[in-house]
Amino acid sequence: MYTVCVRDHFMIAHSFSGAVFGPAQRMHGATYVVDVEFRRRDLDTDGIVVDIGRAGEALREVLGALSYRNLDEEPEFEGKNTTTEFLARVVFDRMAQKVGNGQLGVAARAIHSIRVTLQESHVAWAAFEGELTTR
Amino acid sequence: MYTVCVRDHFMIAHSFSGAVFGPAQRMHGATYVVDVEFRRRDLDTDGIVVDIGRAGEALREVLGALSYRNLDEEPEFEGKNTTTEFLARVVFDRMAQKVGNGQLGVAARAIHSIRVTLQESHVAWAAFEGELTTR
Amino acid sequence: MYTVCVRDHFMIAHSFSGAVFGPAQRMHGATYVVDVEFRRRDLDTDGIVVDIGRAGEALREVLGALSYRNLDEEPEFEGKNTTTEFLARVVFDRMAQKVGNGQLGVAARAIHSIRVTLQESHVAWAAFEGELTTR
Amino acid sequence: MYTVCVRDHFMIAHSFSGAVFGPAQRMHGATYVVDVEFRRRDLDTDGIVVDIGRAGEALREVLGALSYRNLDEEPEFEGKNTTTEFLARVVFDRMAQKVGNGQLGVAARAIHSIRVTLQESHVAWAAFEGELTTR
Amino acid sequence: MYTVCVRDHFMIAHSFSGAVFGPAQRMHGATYVVDVEFRRRDLDTDGIVVDIGRAGEALREVLGALSYRNLDEEPEFEGKNTTTEFLARVVFDRMAQKVGNGQLGVAARAIHSIRVTLQESHVAWAAFEGELTTR
Amino acid sequence: MYTVCVRDHFMIAHSFSGAVFGPAQRMHGATYVVDVEFRRRDLDTDGIVVDIGRAGEALREVLGALSYRNLDEEPEFEGKNTTTEFLARVVFDRMAQKVGNGQLGVAARAIHSIRVTLQESHVAWAAFEGELTTR
Repeated sequence: MYTVCVRDHFMIAHSFSGAVFGPAQRMHGATYVVDVEFRRRDLDTDGIVVDIGRAGEALREVLGALSYRNLDEEPEFEGKNTTTEFLARVVFDRMAQKVGNGQLGVAARAIHSIRVTLQESHVAWAAFEGELTTR
Repeated sequence: MYTVCVRDHFMIAHSFSGAVFGPAQRMHGATYVVDVEFRRRDLDTDGIVVDIGRAGEALREVLGALSYRNLDEEPEFEGKNTTTEFLARVVFDRMAQKVGNGQLGVAARAIHSIRVTLQESHVAWAAFEGELTTR
Repeated sequence: MYTVCVRDHFMIAHSFSGAVFGPAQRMHGATYVVDVEFRRRDLDTDGIVVDIGRAGEALREVLGALSYRNLDEEPEFEGKNTTTEFLARVVFDRMAQKVGNGQLGVAARAIHSIRVTLQESHVAWAAFEGELTTR
Repeated sequence: MYTVCVRDHFMIAHSFSGAVFGPAQRMHGATYVVDVEFRRRDLDTDGIVVDIGRAGEALREVLGALSYRNLDEEPEFEGKNTTTEFLARVVFDRMAQKVGNGQLGVAARAIHSIRVTLQESHVAWAAFEGELTTR
Repeated sequence: MYTVCVRDHFMIAHSFSGAVFGPAQRMHGATYVVDVEFRRRDLDTDGIVVDIGRAGEALREVLGALSYRNLDEEPEFEGKNTTTEFLARVVFDRMAQKVGNGQLGVAARAIHSIRVTLQESHVAWAAFEGELTTR
Repeated sequence: MYTVCVRDHFMIAHSFSGAVFGPAQRMHGATYVVDVEFRRRDLDTDGIVVDIGRAGEALREVLGALSYRNLDEEPEFEGKNTTTEFLARVVFDRMAQKVGNGQLGVAARAIHSIRVTLQESHVAWAAFEGELTTR
């Protein structure tokens, strides 16, 4: 199995609901350094897993729609705790959709699975991974 | 699959038995930077994999029982080479036990598997991963 | 010259005023990974620059007073842009004060200078350094 | 499952064929920081996954045959784009061969799978992983 | 003294002349991860050292003129060994020129000094730093 | 000012004397990842600060004399706490001596200063820097 990974980041404000979050129930924020790994069994005829230029642009587009925002005010996240693991899934779903709709190129539809990791500090990170079912 | 990871470290002295270890047969030591990854298929009702505060405390407790010690003098490791991969398993077993006995919260019992990585230098690390069978 | 450095982190929300900040004028947030370096010309009689345990506790105290907060609502920062470089200075001033008032031990008063670095992502950081004048 | 990983690096020149590569169609180069992970279900009688000394030497040998070269002039890569993912596979195949022919010791034949990661910058990496079939 | 740092990278091919370089006399290449630190004594009225957006664009421009090239064929480097330390100076000179000609904003002319670091692998880097004399 | 840095590591056991060290008064150990920075005002005729091959060998020799040892039993450290900052000075002195006696080449005598950093974990490091007076 081959993997290619690209990295970018985004910065947001949010707060959490639930005693388990302690002081993180207050309005605060985070930088998330994001790694998106694309996996497939064989390389395409160019010898690549994915067009890394297009992959990076797609990721920048996904993160641009989240970045420099207060996630508590985003209607799509209403009633949700935008934890690191929850946001890893959000980025996964949006990247998977871009693979499915051809934005990363036709060849990219051979991508088997994606893993999205969000590093929130030097001592904690979360990830979501899954196979692509849109093919 | 979701993953959440917490990081901490511990520092120990030890020596190894066996020609394969070369100069590491002498008394020496190591800093281990420890990553513990918790994996589960779905988030709980708070939107998390595990209470990261409790996970960090549990890890600190596990590492505190190993840290600032000469592992050659610990009865539980008698006759064993406390290699990086061996210690990864020790940390795994102790963290798994804490999940099983409820120390990370009742919801944490939905954790499917754990991966423990011990980084011993900028050029070498070891890990142990396994599913939790105590559920 | 000797240096000892300790690392910790904090997470905040804030917004900036001024066209130069572009989308960062909106409410957003950041994780800051903080390195505090203590410098002195000679080691004390224990062979150390500073009691690293006390230094870590002092840093945790300083960061705890900032963490999990919306800095826009903190009276002390009213009318200020709490940029990474500005916050590096804030942490410097508070750590310098703790050295001056003896919280890091009497011997720590021999500390010559401090450098505080705040890493805000994998591609950007800021720092403030200065000599201690409270001795 | 246990894992042990060793790290080394190599530096090469090359160019790519195909419009997808944009400016990378010109002669350029890269540093690849290489991680080779060895995996097996149980430790051997010494308590190790692999003799890390021999593993490091084998890796250095494999990378030495690639390093400080213009890959466009290597007959074995003729007509191929030596992308990061392609090179990850090359290093995998050569390390697997060394495990198979006993260069890492007889016990190393119990290694179940290998994963090779090539980091090409602070924002991109590629990997190849597979089970060993030479046993 | 305040510092702000931005990071980017470039990838080149080159060869060296001189027995001291051993196998690096052959055509090879490197990825350089570049950190550019801007230093000044006081913050400007926005509370910043430099417009980090403009600084990043300027750096991208400087690295774009070097990237994906065979430096042996660049007339400006004829007869020179484009070592890591030499290239750190090249990036320094070009960034200093951009500060001097106002490309980073008028306020940026208060920048006192710049430090450029080029990381060539996980075990080696080089830097050049100097005061700005173009003010 | 130009800088070139090389990295290596060593692993030792030791214990400390003095209440300030708390549990570190017990026999324990550490991995130290060591960075040695060489600084000089101008490059030599080859375009380098120092022969990085010789510098790496000299560092390996210095660290080899410390590695895989119990520092409590080394006569030269008797009555000393071998703290991270103390060991940074030891490595500095030994590297400075090698520069002085010509082991890094005659041209290396133009090196102005050296900085040695020992990273002991992901959250703590120490350094010693000084000018070379042996020229």
